Amino acid sequence: MPFPLRKNIAAIAGYTPGEQPQVGEFIKLNTNENPYPPSPRVLSALRRAVNPSLRLYPAPLSDGLRNLAANVYGGGADNVLAGNGSDELLAILARCLVGKGDRVVYPVPTYTLYDTLIAIQEGEKVAVEFPPDFTLPEQIFSESGNLTIVANPNSPSGTLVPLEQIERLARAVSGVLVVDEAYIDFAEGDNVSAIQLIPRHSNLVVLRSFSKAFSLAGMRVGLAFAPEEIIQAMIKIKDSYNLNSLSLVSATAALNDLPWMLRNVKRVQRTRKRLTQSLKKLGFTVYPSQANFILVRRHGENLRGIYEELKRRKILVRYFDLPALRDTLRITVGTPQETDAFVRELKVIVESM
Amino acid sequence: MPFPLRKNIAAIAGYTPGEQPQVGEFIKLNTNENPYPPSPRVLSALRRAVNPSLRLYPAPLSDGLRNLAANVYGGGADNVLAGNGSDELLAILARCLVGKGDRVVYPVPTYTLYDTLIAIQEGEKVAVEFPPDFTLPEQIFSESGNLTIVANPNSPSGTLVPLEQIERLARAVSGVLVVDEAYIDFAEGDNVSAIQLIPRHSNLVVLRSFSKAFSLAGMRVGLAFAPEEIIQAMIKIKDSYNLNSLSLVSATAALNDLPWMLRNVKRVQRTRKRLTQSLKKLGFTVYPSQANFILVRRHGENLRGIYEELKRRKILVRYFDLPALRDTLRITVGTPQETDAFVRELKVIVESM
Repeated sequence: MPFPLRKNIAAIAGYTPGEQPQVGEFIKLNTNENPYPPSPRVLSALRRAVNPSLRLYPAPLSDGLRNLAANVYGGGADNVLAGNGSDELLAILARCLVGKGDRVVYPVPTYTLYDTLIAIQEGEKVAVEFPPDFTLPEQIFSESGNLTIVANPNSPSGTLVPLEQIERLARAVSGVLVVDEAYIDFAEGDNVSAIQLIPRHSNLVVLRSFSKAFSLAGMRVGLAFAPEEIIQAMIKIKDSYNLNSLSLVSATAALNDLPWMLRNVKRVQRTRKRLTQSLKKLGFTVYPSQANFILVRRHGENLRGIYEELKRRKILVRYFDLPALRDTLRITVGTPQETDAFVRELKVIVESM
Repeated sequence: MPFPLRKNIAAIAGYTPGEQPQVGEFIKLNTNENPYPPSPRVLSALRRAVNPSLRLYPAPLSDGLRNLAANVYGGGADNVLAGNGSDELLAILARCLVGKGDRVVYPVPTYTLYDTLIAIQEGEKVAVEFPPDFTLPEQIFSESGNLTIVANPNSPSGTLVPLEQIERLARAVSGVLVVDEAYIDFAEGDNVSAIQLIPRHSNLVVLRSFSKAFSLAGMRVGLAFAPEEIIQAMIKIKDSYNLNSLSLVSATAALNDLPWMLRNVKRVQRTRKRLTQSLKKLGFTVYPSQANFILVRRHGENLRGIYEELKRRKILVRYFDLPALRDTLRITVGTPQETDAFVRELKVIVESM
């Protein structure tokens, strides 16, 4: 290297971006985007906000959005921080809590960004394997670390850990517990989010995303809910103006139209149920999903061939080229039409194998 | 602390957001925003982009913008990275290059974000004082560090270091030289940017911003220009989708309408010249500015009173409560009308002192 790159950064594998082809060309069931558009109220609020005032800096602390989020989800504005996607909030938490050699505990397989963030911080990854049914592994309750992370629902499994288990874990861990709830809006039941536990746990952080249920992946907005002391520490790390003016407008308008999001969630849940049945009929092991995607498995078979054959037929699903996941595929729940087309092609492929 | 916050983060002073009052209420000459609106082409491109495709993730590597920026500024797309403001690019560079105890060298006073980023990384700040005329201090050529940063034009002084000095520094430093050119579009002369030096220096990074000359502070877009190896390392650190879809659209449209930006720059330069004269007449030491703001000084006098009196009269300028800067004020160059109002009020205040 002709420049002094940190050794831990040099050791990180280069980032492989997800496949993001032009819409229309492919049926895109690979990156868990919502098949339905954002609320028309979001679009009209954005159009109004496209005006000369974009020359001015945005509100550095996203005050309006924090206040509104506190009203919607409970707690006070001081318990909320907005991020440039929940990815940024995860990076901020890693930078707050993880120094060289500090342990970060999480069940695997899960969102691989956690690995990268720990490597950047020179932390020590403590990966605890999920049991075959993706319930929370008992070992995780006795591991110690500055940070424990649980994606709930988990990706790529789509499985949900019950709230009692999350609370038990918040009590058990020695450091901070981050519950990454990017997909929680798609879960059934009214009492699944850990946000309600925050007043009882000084070490609990819950992350939310506008990319999935709110159909705003293009706007990059996430929220962190946490005790005020943790939010204050996160504010020290974040860029001064980490959300742009239009992101703020879009998230605010989206929270002001919850019925739109809830209606789309119901549609996704209905399609998820139907897709689950179809996949079972085709002989796959199907994990019970509470997210907007489904993980299927054929034990011991490498499913790359199916992934590639689907891609040839202009349908993208997610194949993870990792030892623990090569016999699985992750399929985003699309519209009923997209789902029908996918099932039809998959049936042809499976029956010709 | 009820949670394991890293000691270096605990030691950082809490962030004090800049004053961002509602427009109209104040004449805002405190945060170096452009007084002129973004290009109408930017606004119409944004309006077109406000559509249902916001449900999809943006291009992870901002390919279109990188290609266009390479065409406009020279080099290839592989020599460009887009950031969520140049603040994000600075944070990425710090995370790439600065580990515990690593030295970061820069002349002071300058942009205080550099201090924060080094503290987050547990780096060692090597601050070299500018001489009274804000020329590059000779000592900086002999300091060693993983990273050397020069804001050019510098903030808060507005002064410009000639390109030959920048090139001499690129040759002299042992690590990476970052030239932060957030304000360079306001400099006079066609040959002031260090981007043209990159092909000759494997350790040179140049940062640009859309917040100032392009009137897009609200959209948060910055660009890094660097040798490909440095860009590749930065990509490992950045969030997968660090720019949102509308930020990409705005920056792309802005680069496609350079005449709009250049016209506004000319207007700011004209007003800057007039404002400089007026401030000299009022007895201030005025530093020769090549940026869209002017630093004035009254040696040894604390200028907080003037700042507060201006604020009472609904004019905001920047007062830095730091030992080296208490006898200065930084004034953004506004419209001719704003500037006239400011000079009128300042005159009354100064004459009543």
